[in-house]
Amino acid sequence: MSRSNNDLYEKPLTSTSIFEGKILKLRRDEVLLPNGKTGTREVVEHPGAVAIVPKTKDGHIILVRQFRHPIRQVILEVPAGKLDPGEKPEACALRELAEETGFVANKLQKLTSIFTTPGFSNEIIHLYVAEDLVKSDKQPDEDEFINTELYSPDQIRQMIAHGEICDAKSLVALCLAGI
Amino acid sequence: MSRSNNDLYEKPLTSTSIFEGKILKLRRDEVLLPNGKTGTREVVEHPGAVAIVPKTKDGHIILVRQFRHPIRQVILEVPAGKLDPGEKPEACALRELAEETGFVANKLQKLTSIFTTPGFSNEIIHLYVAEDLVKSDKQPDEDEFINTELYSPDQIRQMIAHGEICDAKSLVALCLAGI
Repeated sequence: MSRSNNDLYEKPLTSTSIFEGKILKLRRDEVLLPNGKTGTREVVEHPGAVAIVPKTKDGHIILVRQFRHPIRQVILEVPAGKLDPGEKPEACALRELAEETGFVANKLQKLTSIFTTPGFSNEIIHLYVAEDLVKSDKQPDEDEFINTELYSPDQIRQMIAHGEICDAKSLVALCLAGI
Repeated sequence: MSRSNNDLYEKPLTSTSIFEGKILKLRRDEVLLPNGKTGTREVVEHPGAVAIVPKTKDGHIILVRQFRHPIRQVILEVPAGKLDPGEKPEACALRELAEETGFVANKLQKLTSIFTTPGFSNEIIHLYVAEDLVKSDKQPDEDEFINTELYSPDQIRQMIAHGEICDAKSLVALCLAGI
């Protein structure tokens, strides 16, 4: 059976705030399903984020290695970070790149925007490629607890093939950047 | 400054349960940062999930179109679903494929596993390619409110290039499946 978009629509009925944290908000909504029944939706509100594929002049990619408490693992990712209130994604991308890698990008190109978990969260991540990188005067934030590492496209393809890059936004960004 | 993995580690100190929902749990943890200060981490616990790239004999891909309440949009994704308690990812992949598309797969190949949002959630999604598809006797669940649609790899590449597929797990799965 094929339904029109209207026939897939869930009408919002009620919304109850559960938690307002430093980064996340959680709410529980009741919706009217297409079959006339009601359903419960648990929704994590996220401020949105950016992720950047930084390409050096010789074609290497800068990745960051960091500990992620929710999964209790140190993993490799592209530089990324949350939007500050009112901050434009492009400004956020340049800020996060500088904070995490110490590089200023003279060229920033938008790849696309992705939803990381549309089933339970509204998080959107805006993806960019940063080129024409210049070392900033400022050192990367010491409070970031991040290692920056340089890899060739070949090395990155190998790491992806071996499951050594397992972060969704990083995989999408690297794929769409043509790595 | 380059730190060893140990020097990136955050030691868990306390953990406070905030919410236990139908699908999600939320907790707030205190951690000891590498610099000796403490930090707060808001963590969404998720049961884990699977996502499947179903390839028909003539090389088409089955995608599903559905409404996602957290982003209030109808979007295109690969078939996917949450793990039931104790369920093996392979069994879940076959179950979700049948429920969402009405197809049984005689060949299921693991691509990789990804973390969708390691900054705030432990959600892991196991990605598969399903081939040798046979129409099941059972109809897809009427309660899924999902449209199944067939696309050629060329059409999918076009849709990705135009930002018409914006779901992270779907983009990773399609890229890694060589689409």
